[in-house]
Amino acid sequence: MVKLSQLFYAGGTVLMRIEQSPEFQIHLQNLRSKEPLFLETIYNVGNGHFGVRDSNPLQGNNLDYIGSPGLFINGFFDYNDVSYGEKYTGYPENDQIINRVFDPRYIRIKVADEDSAIDHFTVDNIDKNLDMQTGLLHEMFSITTPENRNFNLVVESFSSLSKLNVYGIRYSIIPTNFDEDVEIIKLHNYVNQATHQQNEDVRVSQSIGEMQLDFIPDNGQPSYLITTFRSQQGIILTFQANENVAPDPKIDYFKDENNQYGYRSKYHAKKGSEKNFEFLFAIGDIHPLVNARVYADQYLSALDNYIRGTSFQSELMASAQVWQTFWLHSDVKIDGDPQIQLCLRFNLFELNQSAGRDENTSIPAKGLTGNGYGGHFFWDTEMFMLAFFTYTQPQIAKKLLMFRYHTLNIAKQQASEFGLPKGAMYAWRTINGYESSSYWLAGMAQFHINADIAFAIEQYYTITGDDDFLKKYGFEIILETARFWMQYGNFTELDGKHVFVINKVTGPDEYSALVDNNYYTNVMAQFNLRLAIKYAEKFKATDITSRLNVSDKEIDRMKQAAELMYLPYDKEKNVKLQFQDFEQLLPMHLDQIDQSLFPLLLHYHPLMLYRYQVNKQADTIMADILFPKGNTKEQLIADYDFYEPITTHDSSLSKAMYAIAASRAGKKEQSYDFFSQAVKTDLLDLHHNTQNGIHAGSLGAAWQGVVYGFAGVVNNAEHGAKVTFGLEFN
Amino acid sequence: MVKLSQLFYAGGTVLMRIEQSPEFQIHLQNLRSKEPLFLETIYNVGNGHFGVRDSNPLQGNNLDYIGSPGLFINGFFDYNDVSYGEKYTGYPENDQIINRVFDPRYIRIKVADEDSAIDHFTVDNIDKNLDMQTGLLHEMFSITTPENRNFNLVVESFSSLSKLNVYGIRYSIIPTNFDEDVEIIKLHNYVNQATHQQNEDVRVSQSIGEMQLDFIPDNGQPSYLITTFRSQQGIILTFQANENVAPDPKIDYFKDENNQYGYRSKYHAKKGSEKNFEFLFAIGDIHPLVNARVYADQYLSALDNYIRGTSFQSELMASAQVWQTFWLHSDVKIDGDPQIQLCLRFNLFELNQSAGRDENTSIPAKGLTGNGYGGHFFWDTEMFMLAFFTYTQPQIAKKLLMFRYHTLNIAKQQASEFGLPKGAMYAWRTINGYESSSYWLAGMAQFHINADIAFAIEQYYTITGDDDFLKKYGFEIILETARFWMQYGNFTELDGKHVFVINKVTGPDEYSALVDNNYYTNVMAQFNLRLAIKYAEKFKATDITSRLNVSDKEIDRMKQAAELMYLPYDKEKNVKLQFQDFEQLLPMHLDQIDQSLFPLLLHYHPLMLYRYQVNKQADTIMADILFPKGNTKEQLIADYDFYEPITTHDSSLSKAMYAIAASRAGKKEQSYDFFSQAVKTDLLDLHHNTQNGIHAGSLGAAWQGVVYGFAGVVNNAEHGAKVTFGLEFN
Repeated sequence: MVKLSQLFYAGGTVLMRIEQSPEFQIHLQNLRSKEPLFLETIYNVGNGHFGVRDSNPLQGNNLDYIGSPGLFINGFFDYNDVSYGEKYTGYPENDQIINRVFDPRYIRIKVADEDSAIDHFTVDNIDKNLDMQTGLLHEMFSITTPENRNFNLVVESFSSLSKLNVYGIRYSIIPTNFDEDVEIIKLHNYVNQATHQQNEDVRVSQSIGEMQLDFIPDNGQPSYLITTFRSQQGIILTFQANENVAPDPKIDYFKDENNQYGYRSKYHAKKGSEKNFEFLFAIGDIHPLVNARVYADQYLSALDNYIRGTSFQSELMASAQVWQTFWLHSDVKIDGDPQIQLCLRFNLFELNQSAGRDENTSIPAKGLTGNGYGGHFFWDTEMFMLAFFTYTQPQIAKKLLMFRYHTLNIAKQQASEFGLPKGAMYAWRTINGYESSSYWLAGMAQFHINADIAFAIEQYYTITGDDDFLKKYGFEIILETARFWMQYGNFTELDGKHVFVINKVTGPDEYSALVDNNYYTNVMAQFNLRLAIKYAEKFKATDITSRLNVSDKEIDRMKQAAELMYLPYDKEKNVKLQFQDFEQLLPMHLDQIDQSLFPLLLHYHPLMLYRYQVNKQADTIMADILFPKGNTKEQLIADYDFYEPITTHDSSLSKAMYAIAASRAGKKEQSYDFFSQAVKTDLLDLHHNTQNGIHAGSLGAAWQGVVYGFAGVVNNAEHGAKVTFGLEFN
Repeated sequence: MVKLSQLFYAGGTVLMRIEQSPEFQIHLQNLRSKEPLFLETIYNVGNGHFGVRDSNPLQGNNLDYIGSPGLFINGFFDYNDVSYGEKYTGYPENDQIINRVFDPRYIRIKVADEDSAIDHFTVDNIDKNLDMQTGLLHEMFSITTPENRNFNLVVESFSSLSKLNVYGIRYSIIPTNFDEDVEIIKLHNYVNQATHQQNEDVRVSQSIGEMQLDFIPDNGQPSYLITTFRSQQGIILTFQANENVAPDPKIDYFKDENNQYGYRSKYHAKKGSEKNFEFLFAIGDIHPLVNARVYADQYLSALDNYIRGTSFQSELMASAQVWQTFWLHSDVKIDGDPQIQLCLRFNLFELNQSAGRDENTSIPAKGLTGNGYGGHFFWDTEMFMLAFFTYTQPQIAKKLLMFRYHTLNIAKQQASEFGLPKGAMYAWRTINGYESSSYWLAGMAQFHINADIAFAIEQYYTITGDDDFLKKYGFEIILETARFWMQYGNFTELDGKHVFVINKVTGPDEYSALVDNNYYTNVMAQFNLRLAIKYAEKFKATDITSRLNVSDKEIDRMKQAAELMYLPYDKEKNVKLQFQDFEQLLPMHLDQIDQSLFPLLLHYHPLMLYRYQVNKQADTIMADILFPKGNTKEQLIADYDFYEPITTHDSSLSKAMYAIAASRAGKKEQSYDFFSQAVKTDLLDLHHNTQNGIHAGSLGAAWQGVVYGFAGVVNNAEHGAKVTFGLEFN
């Protein structure tokens, strides 16, 4: 039973009382898949500023060990040349690719004359437990050297939610069959690089940027300046060994042959005895390369302050407290199916770990758990994830929207360079605001992103009533995106009527492209225009409208366009058409296609798919969900029955939307089926690619499945009023 | 005045009587542009097997000299990896790129202690004259050394039409201000390579394949085996110095440090005296690399036979005789404007120099004059060039069609891999039959290529009555391409009617893409289907139809499809629509666009152009031209008046088609304007890129402009009967 009243738990004093509850724990033994790369993703710990994959701690940059370790810092990217067989005007010269920074989990261990950096130690996962109440990842590895010395390595780690720059890790070494000299070395004198790989699966990033360990002031302790070659970004990292906790403190920072500082400790280990080493990392903010070099001293000393005179334990407690607050505000309880309950909590936990909080970043499609999709921000943020934050942590929602505001000028520049005299054209995929889609048919042409952002702003404003945001930032985005539609669309005659059309776009469904009058796009554009009109009227004759050069004439044109917006519809079948002429395409009979051929995009040329009535994901159905007002249940059922059989759900964003539609259409069983699959996407690895990173949009979509579906909440943006929570679902 | 009766000159004994006539000469002084790279293209000499750009003969692979020299051998290519920002299923892994082989014009000249290979000699063109009656290129250069020694270098060269493997070159050296020792060295110990370059102009090839000088049997004379790295092709070249002609014969083949043989001659040169050196090259056929190595001896000795015991003069005479025959059959005379006359002759000359004659090659888009468009074969051959050969040299037309027959199995394989159970899907651009288009929207999606090939076969058959070809080869292509349309298209309901539609194609116009029911494509597909039906009925119950598994049921389906083919039409305006929904696009007002923004594809993103009613080239108008039967003059005028104002003619294939349409529409002045621009495309460099190679398709289109336009010949393929020539045009 979902008790949604908890969703808006008013707060009150939050006490630090953490009872370890299995309902909040991701325990290794309970996971269906034990694939190492899958576990690396699932057990990541992050905080929106950075994420750390749950690597084999002995791997580092040693390619002998299989794994894909790394630290991903939100917004820290390099450019990568995009090479086209044929390059046309306006194609992006380069791609932004999130950097895979060195792994802070890495530790080198020497036992007698054996060395994990040289010899191949066998590492077995004995236990892993992620406690989502505190954000603490607790692991035990059993490690065997080539000469059969065995020891247990306990690793505890967390990414701090209270200090977004801090990452803590604690190692305990317990020999099980030897008494020998042991040395541990904590040194990160490398950067991860990956070579360019052409991957048949476009969802995997093709390559990764180039970085280097740059000059760093010699302050006698480990600190690193990592700079990128092309994007000219720099980031400083440092760490301290904890002097207070180790029973026999001996801080021994040493310099390696490259003048990089590391920490080492050598001691005689006894069978069965335990020795602890604790480290706090401070992971800096992103700076322009020049600043990072010039002000390295200052930045470094600021970072030091985060981790000096404190301890692993104190920082963990502070962070856990934030997690407690998070759960108080955001938990969703589901009675009946503990697996679904756990999956849903995992989803919310990951969402909170993924969201940028600095106004310069958003939520990468894979969170901060991998470099899939290049670490890019998509519409996923606004249409699938933002609602969760808007309802439960509006301060984060605002920061995510501010990212769009800070890149508005780039969006305007892109519209202008494309050839449109006015308006803003947001990038379909980006880190820094510039378009990064090399396949524009399923990229730049998905112009609905512009209306999606406007929609999310309206939703945020409706829920929060944040007038200041609307006046200073929100309206400007709504206006400039509305202006885009006026430029990109046009009035024409169609079927004997005067209409406004939006030709040559790609809707949400990526199994069609470059269509005329995509229903979703047009209805969203209409909504975007109406928002601009509404607020232009609200702010009429104020400095807001005059600053933005809004004229009555412009608003009148927008009114006409919104009024005459062409929405393709089959009057005989009573279905909303995905796009004009959709019905003249060949129907695809999905039930006749071998299961091995899914996802279709990995087995068919895009053009083959574009010829068919087939959907990768919810498209028109999303329009039904987002705009229920005036949409009859009969209409919803008709649309559902039309599109569901031709939808492959090859996109992880699809099933949760169908769960909502099915729920509202009264198809309870189908709804529950879709919802359970959606909510289990990552933890049960239903798309077989969680190893490359979580499906962040899908996590948020599953939350919407609960809230918009079973709980019956409808889109607040359209209704323009707060709704009452507290429904229950069996 | 065009005397078209000459076009079918019956032949008779051809006497070797060559009167040098300025009407057949391209003389340097008469050319408007003197840009070196432009001249390299214009003065190329080729014969369909190979082409040699008119380089600075001292350049070789010395990058100090500016130029783009090279020998292009039809079909000799290497693969080049194609890198995609996002690579989807079915994308070509690699591109075929024609190789730029070493320049056989290259000569190294030493004067006293000065050496053209080391010192920078200044080379001025004094005179160039291409005699199109004989194919002889006669040039004089004035060459000045750094120490101001000056000599004239006369170069005469030709590519033999009588022995397609033979290229002849003769050098004469005349000192003007010195008496010194002179040494000439003829050594080709290098292969040309070009590095990968991302070019903003997609019409320029992005890169070039890799080659090497391979092992060659040591037969004591210069011979080279060039092999490619990836396509595993090999080609043998050899040359001989002419012992008979040089006044003081001293054949001195020497070995350089890489064991490559060359020729050298050292003598004391006197001011004003002339010394000649003659060489005959034999340029082998393309072999699989392994064969080329194993059978190098045999191949080499066969090549030797072409050039042993003969002379530059004899081979030139033999080749010139073939040129004489060519002109007797193919010349078109135009009274009134000598410039147009010369341009048209140049066009025919280049067409004849470009066409492959070995059934394994066709006509590259740039002829054999450059590596633009990768040396690929397009629809240009079948729709713009083949008619010229069909009417004037049907034996060559047949060889060009046989290229398509030999690659039919590849086309069937491509259809199958794309996911179509039957039919042949010819590559939009290719050398070896496999699709080589990395931008499939303006590449593979131009499926009309399949009907274009069928159309050209029908035209060939109608003119020649070659039953044997039709039975053995032609019908099979017609049938398999018709089968493609049955697979790619589908029956549906549209505007309340049961119709056959062909969705998601790109027509000839590349300023639109991925449209439904392109008029040209559909009318060509309809014609293709009807051809298949006609010949299936003709060959009914023979081994021809049984071998190809033709059933009555299949033919009945084809009849239905042809009958119900959807041809978009505006009944109010009475115009054929380029494609369904064309009219809802924004109209582009070309007269309001700055001239500097043409060609539009170099200044706008493709998606920007796709939104507009704008044509790069004749599209629907081509349908009017090709299928005049039952098309009223009123219809033609309506279409012309609709499309002409929105056509940029950014494609060099456009204006000749508009010349034909205008001529038939009675718009004489416009017709003449279009025709003169079309015919002058290369010689006057109207597209500013002749430096990269001739526009082969445009050359053939200009010929069609005369024959189909002014001369009033209509498409024989549709009429199914020969027409009478002999019309006159003022």
